[in-house]
Amino acid sequence: MALNVAQKLIKNHLKSGKMEPGSEISLDIDQTLTQDATGTMVMLELEAMGLDYAKTEASAQYVDHNLIQVDNKNPDDHLFLESAAQRFGLYYSRPGNGVSHPVHMQRLAVPGKTLLGSDSHTCANGCMGMLAMGAGGIDVAMAITGEPFYIKMPEVMGVKLTGDLPDWVSAKDVILEMLRRYDVKGGVGKIIEYYGPGLDNLSAMDRHVIANMGAELGATATVFPSDNEVKRFLAQQDREDEWVELVADNGATYDSYDEINLSELEPLIAKPSSPGNVVPVSDIAGTPIYQSYIGSSANPGYRDFAVAAEIVKGRRIADGMSFDINPTSRQMLTNLVKEFHIASLLQAGARLHQAGCNGCIGMGQAPASGRNSLRTTPRNFPGRSGTSEDSVFLCGPETAAVSALTGEITDPRTMDFAYPEVSEPSDPNVEDLLDRPLPPEEAKEVDLVKGSNIVSIPGMGDLPDKLEVPVLLKVGDNISTDEILAGGARVLPYRSNLPEISNFTFEAVDSTYVDRGIESKNAGGHAIVGGYNYGQGSSREHAALAPRYLGLRVAVVKDYARIHWQNLINFGILPLKFTNEADYDKLSKGEVLKFTNLRQQLLEGDKLTATLADNGEDITVEHNLTPRQKDIILHGGLINWIKAKQV
Amino acid sequence: MALNVAQKLIKNHLKSGKMEPGSEISLDIDQTLTQDATGTMVMLELEAMGLDYAKTEASAQYVDHNLIQVDNKNPDDHLFLESAAQRFGLYYSRPGNGVSHPVHMQRLAVPGKTLLGSDSHTCANGCMGMLAMGAGGIDVAMAITGEPFYIKMPEVMGVKLTGDLPDWVSAKDVILEMLRRYDVKGGVGKIIEYYGPGLDNLSAMDRHVIANMGAELGATATVFPSDNEVKRFLAQQDREDEWVELVADNGATYDSYDEINLSELEPLIAKPSSPGNVVPVSDIAGTPIYQSYIGSSANPGYRDFAVAAEIVKGRRIADGMSFDINPTSRQMLTNLVKEFHIASLLQAGARLHQAGCNGCIGMGQAPASGRNSLRTTPRNFPGRSGTSEDSVFLCGPETAAVSALTGEITDPRTMDFAYPEVSEPSDPNVEDLLDRPLPPEEAKEVDLVKGSNIVSIPGMGDLPDKLEVPVLLKVGDNISTDEILAGGARVLPYRSNLPEISNFTFEAVDSTYVDRGIESKNAGGHAIVGGYNYGQGSSREHAALAPRYLGLRVAVVKDYARIHWQNLINFGILPLKFTNEADYDKLSKGEVLKFTNLRQQLLEGDKLTATLADNGEDITVEHNLTPRQKDIILHGGLINWIKAKQV
Repeated sequence: MALNVAQKLIKNHLKSGKMEPGSEISLDIDQTLTQDATGTMVMLELEAMGLDYAKTEASAQYVDHNLIQVDNKNPDDHLFLESAAQRFGLYYSRPGNGVSHPVHMQRLAVPGKTLLGSDSHTCANGCMGMLAMGAGGIDVAMAITGEPFYIKMPEVMGVKLTGDLPDWVSAKDVILEMLRRYDVKGGVGKIIEYYGPGLDNLSAMDRHVIANMGAELGATATVFPSDNEVKRFLAQQDREDEWVELVADNGATYDSYDEINLSELEPLIAKPSSPGNVVPVSDIAGTPIYQSYIGSSANPGYRDFAVAAEIVKGRRIADGMSFDINPTSRQMLTNLVKEFHIASLLQAGARLHQAGCNGCIGMGQAPASGRNSLRTTPRNFPGRSGTSEDSVFLCGPETAAVSALTGEITDPRTMDFAYPEVSEPSDPNVEDLLDRPLPPEEAKEVDLVKGSNIVSIPGMGDLPDKLEVPVLLKVGDNISTDEILAGGARVLPYRSNLPEISNFTFEAVDSTYVDRGIESKNAGGHAIVGGYNYGQGSSREHAALAPRYLGLRVAVVKDYARIHWQNLINFGILPLKFTNEADYDKLSKGEVLKFTNLRQQLLEGDKLTATLADNGEDITVEHNLTPRQKDIILHGGLINWIKAKQV
Repeated sequence: MALNVAQKLIKNHLKSGKMEPGSEISLDIDQTLTQDATGTMVMLELEAMGLDYAKTEASAQYVDHNLIQVDNKNPDDHLFLESAAQRFGLYYSRPGNGVSHPVHMQRLAVPGKTLLGSDSHTCANGCMGMLAMGAGGIDVAMAITGEPFYIKMPEVMGVKLTGDLPDWVSAKDVILEMLRRYDVKGGVGKIIEYYGPGLDNLSAMDRHVIANMGAELGATATVFPSDNEVKRFLAQQDREDEWVELVADNGATYDSYDEINLSELEPLIAKPSSPGNVVPVSDIAGTPIYQSYIGSSANPGYRDFAVAAEIVKGRRIADGMSFDINPTSRQMLTNLVKEFHIASLLQAGARLHQAGCNGCIGMGQAPASGRNSLRTTPRNFPGRSGTSEDSVFLCGPETAAVSALTGEITDPRTMDFAYPEVSEPSDPNVEDLLDRPLPPEEAKEVDLVKGSNIVSIPGMGDLPDKLEVPVLLKVGDNISTDEILAGGARVLPYRSNLPEISNFTFEAVDSTYVDRGIESKNAGGHAIVGGYNYGQGSSREHAALAPRYLGLRVAVVKDYARIHWQNLINFGILPLKFTNEADYDKLSKGEVLKFTNLRQQLLEGDKLTATLADNGEDITVEHNLTPRQKDIILHGGLINWIKAKQV
């Protein structure tokens, strides 16, 4: 049977399950990527799991998110991550090396491989003919220990590219066109595979732009073939020997189809406050701006900066403009310096920032209140810039650069100068200063370096056969993970410190929960009762880990948001649903739920009986756990499960 | 009479007083400099004073401190400062242009002029044959309105320089040698003037290094002659026409003397946690370091970065090292880029940060806990880096660069390669993108742009003739301005918002003070009673302004720290001392002090009578106010005083 690229990648890594859209499959993972904001917990999980040495072909720990060091916390994290990378046999990318996605592409990506990363834009490396996917931290920890990754087999959508991009239009406009057509949910459950003659006109880094923002479509992954352009890119990186061809078979088909004629695209822009809110730039030309921002994994390429530099060269940015340049890797910054592009940007009035994620994730460069910010970043969710009620527009570097000159959103085609042709340096610097993994015998000798804010994950017990747990909290519908455990600058610095971050649990819902939780812990734990869509929102695993730390053993709700449900299982919390939703009313705060013969009950079916201590009434609750998930719960979570397996 | 350079500068600007060390003089101020951390309040003071247009020859508002934008506060401040600069006829230096001191030197410094700045390192521009001094914010605001600056006539200390610096030794070692000899109080009450044949071997930017850290000696100012080197520097900046010669007369003398033979200097280093804690680098060679940091106004020159770049060129920094490069101006960064020095630094493993003060003032690059940080910055006070219990060493760029390679404090003379000769580019970029002042007629039309955190200073009344004020707070000895109003990341963001920052007043001393103060305000205000050395520590003017906002009218203490005493006067608070210190015991919290015929009493002498409402007893209190200071107090502070004068 003729296979497309996505199907080949899956087939070559299929560990279990059938390649039928919607059915659960598991995949062998060749490479992993972690960044610092999620990586500290991943490394603590590896420690708790007792990992000796990474079982993947290549795993890399990047430091690109928390580069603002106003006290010891972030630099302590960096040293911890460096020591953990040494201890577990990972590559380590120090602060200053740049954003994980382009650096990984440059130094470690290999066509035909799978890549799992604890960052939602991990999908960017799909540009290299890889199956690259974002996942939760512990999923990546599991992959590092050699476990497969479980997903539902996605549909594969084929997008045929034809034509060639006009002047002033670039790869960013391709993915903005996809977002215009499909909006931010349009890719859910799908792999998007690009094919067709238009590919010949997109460089590997252009494809990175498109694959990166597949995350904004909600897609599981974005896949490009590994063709001669990928070979050229690898050769430029002195890695031509790592190239393998991976293209769709003749006659390969897709579950659905679309087509984009590159020649017909025009400069596009996403208005506040969703990446799916796309219109032609010309529609909103003249809107005043305060900031123009170039960088991030959504426009990381040499050409993205070079074209901006050529546009502003010999010119001056508008008065009052903040023109923020965020280099994406040491390699690219060095090349941009050597080719005088950085000088052009500086002389035009740019602010040059350190290489990293920076303002894209709210770490600096927040716009002034009530002002418009134009960015080449992938996301403009409300407040993500750091400024509440912000107004962020997303576009390509051409629009960002010309608008920096005019002080207002400007269709670059209306400028009175020619589109600059930029070419890559003939002999580029290709060094990113990745620290290579230590050999296993040296790795064993490394001690983890833990600053005062880095605390090992405490051991947690398995599921007891008998549980008597009071309901400490009863909540309504649509409780989000933000309500369970807030994000933001106040809480995030404690992401590597479970005891400390737990103090923020359910803070806005019930400020007494934490103390009562700690009390319950020694008395066998507690339960929480909830309504519909429990745990919606951000995928943060701390929203399961922190309550578990405080003694949560059982949740009983009407239904769960999918990712939080998975996180509860991963950390050994029994995620139950009411069989009869009316029973929700019977469970008040303070009620004690009794489960007996629990382990056997769990193994035998989908339903459990819980007895209300108050009046002795039995209610029926249910779960939808696979045998593997039951096993994880019985062990008390993934950490215990993998430890038991390693014995 | 033969005059030295300092005496000529003072004589040429003397407005009142006699040039006898210790006696009060006032000086005309030609130029001012404000940075963003202090400048927001200065601009609000100008607004409150009703200034129409700056009366100085050149005043510049720089944005170099608060460059980390994690929410709207800092960028809102930047826009406010830009609008205020336009409104009041100031130069404006936008974020990204760099540190005020080198930028001012490059673009605005003029030999023979006076410069007053609301930054303690303003003295750096003494390298240009200027009398450059740091001062409180409102002093600078007064200077901008055309008022003279009052100081006690300093002694002038002459330091003769002979010889030439050996390889691996640079200007930083000259000022470190001064700190080794005199420690951090050794310059108090003095102007330090350098002279002698050794000057011929120090560039203008080398002299900047030495003048800058005169602040660490506690000196009022540091003065260099305006000689051919200053002419060369100005010519390089396309400003040769602004050069005037200013050298000491033949036979000029000094109040005291010292001499440094440059040829005999060796690489020096200040150990934690004082700039005066200086030893030879060789004494502590081998001490492990985690961070090497180059930049700040204490090593801002092209050569400081270029020599570091040449040292690390083709080499690799030590594993685990954070090698932080902080460019000091757009101009220098552009030149360093064009001459490939930045590429050398990046390829060796450096982190390149935006141009600005950055980690020097704790805005980023805080070291990890328990690790040593080596910096070319001027100060290593405990915790200034942002990390509590930090361990910061101060040195020159040669030591910093070689230590980045070795991973430990290293005497650069022990390296096995030759001292790199660096030369400045033959045709340097000299653009810093300073925005020029608007002409007066345009300035009038500008509205101040105030984000939500920028609040005008409310009007405050003059001194009533009759005061009945309860003692809201009674404190002991050595109350610091930190106890009156804390600094730090929690409080500093409100420095442009007096009502908000006032909520932190005396927080650690008495948490009820703020509420009681607000209550007292409508009832005629209140008094505070204190012991010895009241208001010691930081010079922050908010420590007077905030209590005044909360109704403080009178302080009665045993004695005052000098700067806080001045600040109290500036903001219209009557600073009284007990004539009989035993009366301290008679004044309890809650006691009401009554003053009658107060304005007349104040005008007539040095003593006042206060009646204790409780028992009708009279006590005598005193002050030591000059007629000018009395006038300021009668008006209710400097803002009212200058407004009255302008009518």
